[in-house]
This record gives sequence, C-alpha cells and structure tokens, in this order.
Amino acid sequence: MERVAIIGAAMTQFGQRDAWVRELLAEAGAACLENSGVKAEALDHLYVSNMASGEFEGQTGIPNALAHDLAALPAYTARIDQTSSSGGAGVYAAWQSIASGASEMTMLVGGEKMTHRSTAEATDVIASLTHPVEYKQGVTLPSFAGLTARLYLDTYDAPRESLGKVAVKNHKNGVDNPHAQFQKEVDLETVMESPVVADPLRLYDFCPITDGSAALLLCPESVAKEYTDSYVTIEGIGGATDTHVVHERADPTTMGGVVDSSEIAYEMADMDPDDIDVAELHDMFTILEFLQSEDLGFFEKGKGWKAIEDGVTDRDGELPINTSGGLKSKGHPLGASGVAQVYEIYQQLTGNAGPRQVDANVGLACNVGGFGNCVTTTIMEAN
Amino acid sequence: MERVAIIGAAMTQFGQRDAWVRELLAEAGAACLENSGVKAEALDHLYVSNMASGEFEGQTGIPNALAHDLAALPAYTARIDQTSSSGGAGVYAAWQSIASGASEMTMLVGGEKMTHRSTAEATDVIASLTHPVEYKQGVTLPSFAGLTARLYLDTYDAPRESLGKVAVKNHKNGVDNPHAQFQKEVDLETVMESPVVADPLRLYDFCPITDGSAALLLCPESVAKEYTDSYVTIEGIGGATDTHVVHERADPTTMGGVVDSSEIAYEMADMDPDDIDVAELHDMFTILEFLQSEDLGFFEKGKGWKAIEDGVTDRDGELPINTSGGLKSKGHPLGASGVAQVYEIYQQLTGNAGPRQVDANVGLACNVGGFGNCVTTTIMEAN
Repeated sequence: MERVAIIGAAMTQFGQRDAWVRELLAEAGAACLENSGVKAEALDHLYVSNMASGEFEGQTGIPNALAHDLAALPAYTARIDQTSSSGGAGVYAAWQSIASGASEMTMLVGGEKMTHRSTAEATDVIASLTHPVEYKQGVTLPSFAGLTARLYLDTYDAPRESLGKVAVKNHKNGVDNPHAQFQKEVDLETVMESPVVADPLRLYDFCPITDGSAALLLCPESVAKEYTDSYVTIEGIGGATDTHVVHERADPTTMGGVVDSSEIAYEMADMDPDDIDVAELHDMFTILEFLQSEDLGFFEKGKGWKAIEDGVTDRDGELPINTSGGLKSKGHPLGASGVAQVYEIYQQLTGNAGPRQVDANVGLACNVGGFGNCVTTTIMEAN
Repeated sequence: MERVAIIGAAMTQFGQRDAWVRELLAEAGAACLENSGVKAEALDHLYVSNMASGEFEGQTGIPNALAHDLAALPAYTARIDQTSSSGGAGVYAAWQSIASGASEMTMLVGGEKMTHRSTAEATDVIASLTHPVEYKQGVTLPSFAGLTARLYLDTYDAPRESLGKVAVKNHKNGVDNPHAQFQKEVDLETVMESPVVADPLRLYDFCPITDGSAALLLCPESVAKEYTDSYVTIEGIGGATDTHVVHERADPTTMGGVVDSSEIAYEMADMDPDDIDVAELHDMFTILEFLQSEDLGFFEKGKGWKAIEDGVTDRDGELPINTSGGLKSKGHPLGASGVAQVYEIYQQLTGNAGPRQVDANVGLACNVGGFGNCVTTTIMEAN
C-alpha cells in the first residue's frame, strides 16, 4: 500500500476570536489550500473535526457549510467527533480515506468556538462526555486531573514543582508561536502561587478555553510529489479506547489508550520510542504531559517528572515536547487541537518552524479525548 | 484490494423507546455480535453514527460509553456525524477502516433518541443544520419539502395522489417489519385528507420522530469466510455534498449529492442502475423517494411518479423500493437510519427478510443528509 503524505498545513490565530466556528474553519481551510497550491476542486473528501458546534453555537451541519465556503462541492463531507481528541480522530479518518483509495486528496479541518460561553458552561459541555455515574457526582475533567496528580506525586515521589515546570516550559515555547493564545513566559513562582483549582493543581496547570481552527491536506505519496518536494509521510497511526468510568482503571497514573494506540502506531511505523525526535502531547493539564511521556515509552513509568527537571524535554533538550507551546499556552479549541499538533510536527519536519525549529526527522503527536478515554497517536517522518 | 464484507446486522425496535441512546446503541450492538458469532474482543474499530446526542440528551462521548457497554476495549472508537445521513457516513467510515487495512473487524452502530423532546424542539435541532441565511427566515426541512413537492408536481405534471401512494406503499411494507414504528396500512384517502403540514404535503407525507438503533459488522472478505458462508459484499460506495443553501441549486428537483455519490458507487461497482434489484431510499418526505429514484438513474427525470402509479416499486414490482417500510413507516432515528437501510439490504440479499423477502442479488442504499446537503450511496451484492 502506498504511503499517505501530508502536503499542506495551516492554522488560525488561537485565542478569543470574534468569529463563529464555520468562519474559523473556512479561514484555516482557505489558508491551507493557498499554502499548498491545491485547488478546492481537487478535494475528494473534506472532514471536519469538531466536538460540539451544536451545543456551543446551535449550529450543526458545519462540514456542509465548509464545503460551501471553500467552494469544494461536490467533495464528500463528514464530521468526526471524539470529544477532545476529535482532531486526532480526524487525522485517522483522513488517513483511512487515502489509504483505502476512497480519496486522492483529503482536507481535514478541525475547529471549535468556545469563548462566547462562560467557563462554567463550557466546562459543563465538556463534562457531558464523562460517564453518567461520575457526572452525577459533579465530576469534571479538572477534578480527575487533581486526583491523578496527587496520586502521581505521592506514588513516584515527585515534587509539586515538577508539574509547574511543564507550564513554564510550554509557555516559554509559546512565546515563539505567533498562533498561540498566550505568547508570554510565566515563572515557576507565578504558577505555584496561582489559585488552586483542583488540589494540588492550580490555575496555571490548566489549558485555557480557546477559539481556533487548523487544517491539513493529505494525499497518496505519488500525488504529493506532483505538488511539492517537501512533505511529511504518516508512518504509523493508531487509536484506542480506555474505560469510560475513570475509577474503573487499575492504575489511574497509566493511560491505557496512550499505551495501546502507540503500540499500533509504532508497529505500523516499525519504530520504537527512541526513534522519535520531537513530540506534541496533550497537556490539557500539566500532569497529562508526564503520563503520556511515560505511556508512549519515552521515559520509564514514574520518571517523566525527572525528564523535565533535567531539561530533556526543553526545546534544546534530547526530546523536545510541545515546541508549539502545547495546549497549555497555544490553547485548546477542542476539535482543532489534534490537528494543530500535527500542524506543529509538519512545520518541524519540513523545517518551517522558525524560531521554534528543532533538529528532527521523525515526530509524534498524541491526542487525548476525555480523561484518556480515547486516544490517537500519529508518527510522521520527513520525506 | 480485498473486498469489504458485511457479516452481521441487527436493529432494535424503532419507535418511542424508554431508553437513552447509549442503551439503544448497546442493545443493537450486542444483538449484532450475538447474531454473527463475533466476540467483542475481536473488534478493532467501533464507530457510532449519531447526529445530536449532546443536543437531545446532554450526553456526549457515546462511542466511549458503547465500548464500555459492549466490553470492546481497547477498540478504537469515534462518532461520525453527517446530520440525517450520519448512518450512511458511518457505513463509509467503516468501509474505509477495513479497506485501508486499519481494522480487520469494525462494528458500526447508529442511533438516536428523540421522542422525549417535543416535535418543535426536535425539528429545531434538525433545522440547525440549515444555512443561517435560511434558518433565520424560519426555514425547516419540511418547508423545503413542501416547496419542492409543489415544483415537482407542476413541472412534471404529476398528480398529488402519486405522492400519497408512496406513503401507502411504504406503510404496507412496514406491516411486515417487526422493527417498524408503524406496522399498519394506511389508505390513500387517509393520506390525502390528513392535516396540511407544508402545502401540498400533509401529515402522512412525513416520516415520524423516532428512537432506535441499528448495527453492522464489517471485515475483509477473507475474514468473513471464517465466520459464515452467507454474507454481503460492498461493491461500490460513494459520498457527495450539495449546496448548503438550498435556494442556490439550479434545479431543486434534482439532488446533486445523489447524482454524484451514485456515480462514484456505480463506477466502483462497475454496475449501472439496471443492475439494482432492490433499494432503500431516504423517504423522509414522500417527494424524496421520487427525486432519488430519478437521480439514481432508476427512472427518467420527472418519471419517478409514474413508477409508483404502475406498481414498479411495489414489493412484487420490477424494482422494489423501501421493502423495510422506509423512513416513512419504519421511523427515522437520525443516526440509525442509514445503518438500518443497509440492515434491510443485508437481510434481503442473505434471504432473511421473511415476509418482506424479494428476489434480489444486488441492492442499493441511499442515505440523505439535510435536504440533500450530503449523501452516501452504497451498492451491495450477495456473496
């Protein structure tokens, strides 16, 4: 089977945007076509990654709207939802559309518009993904994060400051990302003294609520060569689901969906964790960066926190993580985030990351839905 | 590339159900596994077709819930939404998962829970798929149907009664479908004298609001042979999108998405309309059965109404349409409908349609989202 290539990527400014999701999708989609020299009429399939346009805006059918706005008719359209990992699920759908031969040119556009709703409203929409037995107890994703962080710190004898350093690192990276919601550094003291949200986690351990969109163009490698000399191939991709009820997990500090999805992706790519040069992880909460970096096999279980203490995951470290600023400083428009992770890896592997550029030939993106409920892992390589 | 087979199918009772969508999905999914002798742990991918569980029930993340309820972890899960054609989009996604090699066993479960909401509330959720410029004018899908029916009757000199006969035929078929919401005949007089909804269409020209779920199991043909001697192969499948703004269409009596998606499906199958022995069309409104039967190439443009007058589409006619009772009498739980169409074709092609059985070797399902906004067409053949 021919390899699937990514030949273009774009993203909008992330942050508080005065635009509905359909406008954000059109902005990213049009930029992606423009960047890559692909005409809208070349699109066979057009996918939209989005969790909740109906709940947030009262607007559904947004893939149909996007096909209209990009003049991409009669391209086949559909919406892919996997809650906060809708973007990664969209990458997987787009990959399948090419690998199956159904499409020779697929655009994926992820997006979400959230900031017009209050934090309480937005959090409640997101919490609707939890199992009813937990939701009824008032459980939200931040509360899971607090409980898990406490367990992790206690079990692995990790200092609270190590979590704060994830926020400091990712904010530092975000300074050089012109699309990031926050382009400013924070110091450890600010993080450690910010208001408690879910003990031991504080305000700066959490990603913000964000509007934004990101887009990718995928095609068979033979078609990619017709458009450009510089592209990225998807070498491995996999998805997996963990328990809906979080308290049913044997060890809440292990994200089973990350372990299982990455095993599929590594096997398809015929690679192992040592082959990865740069990674975008789903740092919706600081603690999640540790868990994923361990469950992806980058570090031993319980040692993820040491990597940040030692600077291993800094931009100039051995394995830079979240060079984009991560969800923490770039922002987290649900359906866009997994697409924007792949955007960052694409920029790094094609040498277009500007001041964020690191030396990398192989990159990985890990997009997490819910509290690890469902995960996609994608491994990419420069051509 | 190896052919994709359907080796199992199940559906719940359609109608007013005292169960949430996650319960309906689990009921159909468990029955499908049971029917086909496939164990939950054999599932690589598990897709849910659903338009609006968040809007209807305040519950999202339902693929995660289904993986839990079926004990299918760590199968990859995602939700596929394409409004009222979510089921067909799910069939396409499931096909792609097998054809791409990503999965060797994929379950698709479509479902929706709607009847706990008022007709006005449900209609408004559905209307949120229309373009904002039309929605603001109070446009709903039934209003488009009324306008289109008037245009069709005038343009093609068709009698109003021919539309009524679609309802009569499909109700008659539904009598023999134990899963149908309405298992009772209606006579032409009842249809013609029912209350006007959107002139010239009356109450009996419209499908009901329905709860229900349907499930399918897909795998490569080589795997199918390990489980059963009796299966169906997907010979052709395609999807296409038409304008989001309905009034931008040059001829509202032609559904461009039906034309374009069926061209892809016929080409892939190396078949033409004459090869189709039985079809399930998306008769959300009676007029849509005429439009699709013409745009799929079964009958000349403007002649679809004559086919019903001549009995061609009756169960004992030359090309039986909607042997299941169609959306009209079986019901239309949005995300389930496209899956239930394929369920019916599967039953017909495997000779398990009971009193509804017709003589058929090749069948077609056409699932329409919005008012023809997005369409998938699937052509299946008995093995």
